[in-house]
Amino acid sequence: MKFLSVDEQLEKIRWGAADLLVEADLRKKLARNKPLKIKFGADPSRPDLHIGHTVVINKMRTFQELGHEVIFLIGDFTGLIGDPSGRNQTRPLLTVDEIKENAKTYSEQIFKILDPEKTTIAFNSEWINKLTSVDWIKLAASSTVAQMLEREDFSKRYQNKAPISLHEFLYPLVQAYDSVALKADVELGGTDQTFNLLKGRELQTHLGQEAQVVLTMPLLEGIDGVQKMSKSYDNYISLIDVPRDMFGKVMRISDELMIRYYHLLTDLKPKLGDEHPRELKVKLAHLLVERFHSKSVADNAVDEFNRMFQQGGLPDDIEVRDFAAGTYVADALLADLNLATSKSDAQRLIKGSACEISGNKVSDFKAKIELKSGEEVLIRVGKKRFIKLKVK
Amino acid sequence: MKFLSVDEQLEKIRWGAADLLVEADLRKKLARNKPLKIKFGADPSRPDLHIGHTVVINKMRTFQELGHEVIFLIGDFTGLIGDPSGRNQTRPLLTVDEIKENAKTYSEQIFKILDPEKTTIAFNSEWINKLTSVDWIKLAASSTVAQMLEREDFSKRYQNKAPISLHEFLYPLVQAYDSVALKADVELGGTDQTFNLLKGRELQTHLGQEAQVVLTMPLLEGIDGVQKMSKSYDNYISLIDVPRDMFGKVMRISDELMIRYYHLLTDLKPKLGDEHPRELKVKLAHLLVERFHSKSVADNAVDEFNRMFQQGGLPDDIEVRDFAAGTYVADALLADLNLATSKSDAQRLIKGSACEISGNKVSDFKAKIELKSGEEVLIRVGKKRFIKLKVK
Repeated sequence: MKFLSVDEQLEKIRWGAADLLVEADLRKKLARNKPLKIKFGADPSRPDLHIGHTVVINKMRTFQELGHEVIFLIGDFTGLIGDPSGRNQTRPLLTVDEIKENAKTYSEQIFKILDPEKTTIAFNSEWINKLTSVDWIKLAASSTVAQMLEREDFSKRYQNKAPISLHEFLYPLVQAYDSVALKADVELGGTDQTFNLLKGRELQTHLGQEAQVVLTMPLLEGIDGVQKMSKSYDNYISLIDVPRDMFGKVMRISDELMIRYYHLLTDLKPKLGDEHPRELKVKLAHLLVERFHSKSVADNAVDEFNRMFQQGGLPDDIEVRDFAAGTYVADALLADLNLATSKSDAQRLIKGSACEISGNKVSDFKAKIELKSGEEVLIRVGKKRFIKLKVK
Repeated sequence: MKFLSVDEQLEKIRWGAADLLVEADLRKKLARNKPLKIKFGADPSRPDLHIGHTVVINKMRTFQELGHEVIFLIGDFTGLIGDPSGRNQTRPLLTVDEIKENAKTYSEQIFKILDPEKTTIAFNSEWINKLTSVDWIKLAASSTVAQMLEREDFSKRYQNKAPISLHEFLYPLVQAYDSVALKADVELGGTDQTFNLLKGRELQTHLGQEAQVVLTMPLLEGIDGVQKMSKSYDNYISLIDVPRDMFGKVMRISDELMIRYYHLLTDLKPKLGDEHPRELKVKLAHLLVERFHSKSVADNAVDEFNRMFQQGGLPDDIEVRDFAAGTYVADALLADLNLATSKSDAQRLIKGSACEISGNKVSDFKAKIELKSGEEVLIRVGKKRFIKLKVK
């Protein structure tokens, strides 16, 4: 295949990236005019992605478009072990079946961005399980204790006297060895992965292989614009959010954050002032809903938003309430939520077309409303009364 | 077999020991009236023992005499790998043949103390090479980084910013796993081994096995009475020292050190004042030469010493000189060393029976004298002229 020039490729690769270590090496690799192996490692214990994760995946897509080979590596060896010290409850032991299931869920999500035809899926247990005791000693000998303690989270924990299990020092080496096994030319990750990615570079050199180039992408801020996007901060947009939620979350971010999202999630480079911020935001929301759902769903979401907006829009502060999952009858639900004074009041409101659940008008007051755990459901009664249910 | 009572056994076990961790556990084990498995690990890269090493081996013999099973464990897994970081030149990679050869040399030496019939020899590569990658992760997870850095040499090196290769953290775990594989009841070592021995205790508990008891022995001071006995301080008595050297080195130690040597190397418990110190020293020297050579050789050494002593003894300060290994002609050698004014002077002295090399009278002035590297050779001419050659 015909590649773009090194400079042209580099420009696309560098766009939006945090760090490229080191450019001279990447130039040398690109100049050979052969497809490079681009490694991206996934943790199979967390298959449910949010758009923060897609910053790196978008960059993988760029490499694919430039004609390079993308390797989507499932770290199943680590997942199968979990955390043997039992200290870290967030890293449970997974079964082989769970890993497969998670890998499938993961693939379905990333293939909304990457071209499945041009993506290799690999599992690291294939080579890690073949390492002998001698291999492990040699692997461990490739690094010093002090080098490991340079990793920010390790040094913090060490200083705070929080325990670091010794096997945690081995995991970065496993990740590094994956690069050796794959003969990776480039490894991508978030800036929080820099240490681990550089270990791959070191180990390849140590074992006489050409060193991979490390390309890190910035961490995307969550919709609060303050913390990095993370489930633990509840400031994320999940790839499996229903269209209305995804759309609505994008519409609520600040104008500055919108520009940053454009920067890290799209190829577009708008500036504030080019267009009305709300129009830009609608465009971004449409783009993301289209990417993770479909164009028609995204078009509907825009229509619905505009209708809502023309009706005066959502109030700034909607009451949010935790609510048990289950199947409810429409009139009883409204009464329960005090959106109606009684069931008969609720029936009257529904007959008068005054009630919408998740954007769908409710026309039958005996309709069964199914609320699934994990959903966020917006209920509107009349023009001004809203309540948002977080279904548990 | 019939065992001594727990108290009687404990008294013999505790005699001369530095630490017993923990006595209650040992009592429980002894009370079962079954032979215990007593582990002693040897480093096959250093097969040439000095009597400092025999302090622990003597204690193993005590266990044998008490009816327990002594396991002499050769750490060949470690020896085969050497130091893969290449930083430590003192731990070279050994071949399988060298390990076997060293193990043989080692056994020959320890079997001067231990009963070969009651000693099991084991090689840890047998089980360590069977560990899988998952096993290694679990092994590493049994310890934290902070726990490893508590080991004195590690913490010193870390503080001094001297590199610690990560595999060095795995070696104590290998040693600990050896205790698991052997189901050791007791592990012996010098006080400098306390950390590693306790790791075995921890790992056994971690893996649901009964914990081994740790028995440490004091480090023997070298013949200078200052530093611990070590080849690097050149203050050692090697088990393969020629009888005359072994005898002579013991005769040169201080009276206080002699008592300590009795304490740590024998079952005898003499006190200063019981007997003339020189007689006590002769007895100790005889005992050690007998142990590592034979009774007749030891008797000869005593005779020779007495004769020398009655002739006025060796001067306090003998000139010591480095000398190149090689084969020399007797008369030329004396002249070279300025023990004779010329070759003819040397011939006259030799003919007059005035010359001894390593205690053997030289009668032929053209005799070929072979000086081997590593030997110490005492040359006497007449009654008063001595020179000691350190052959390089």
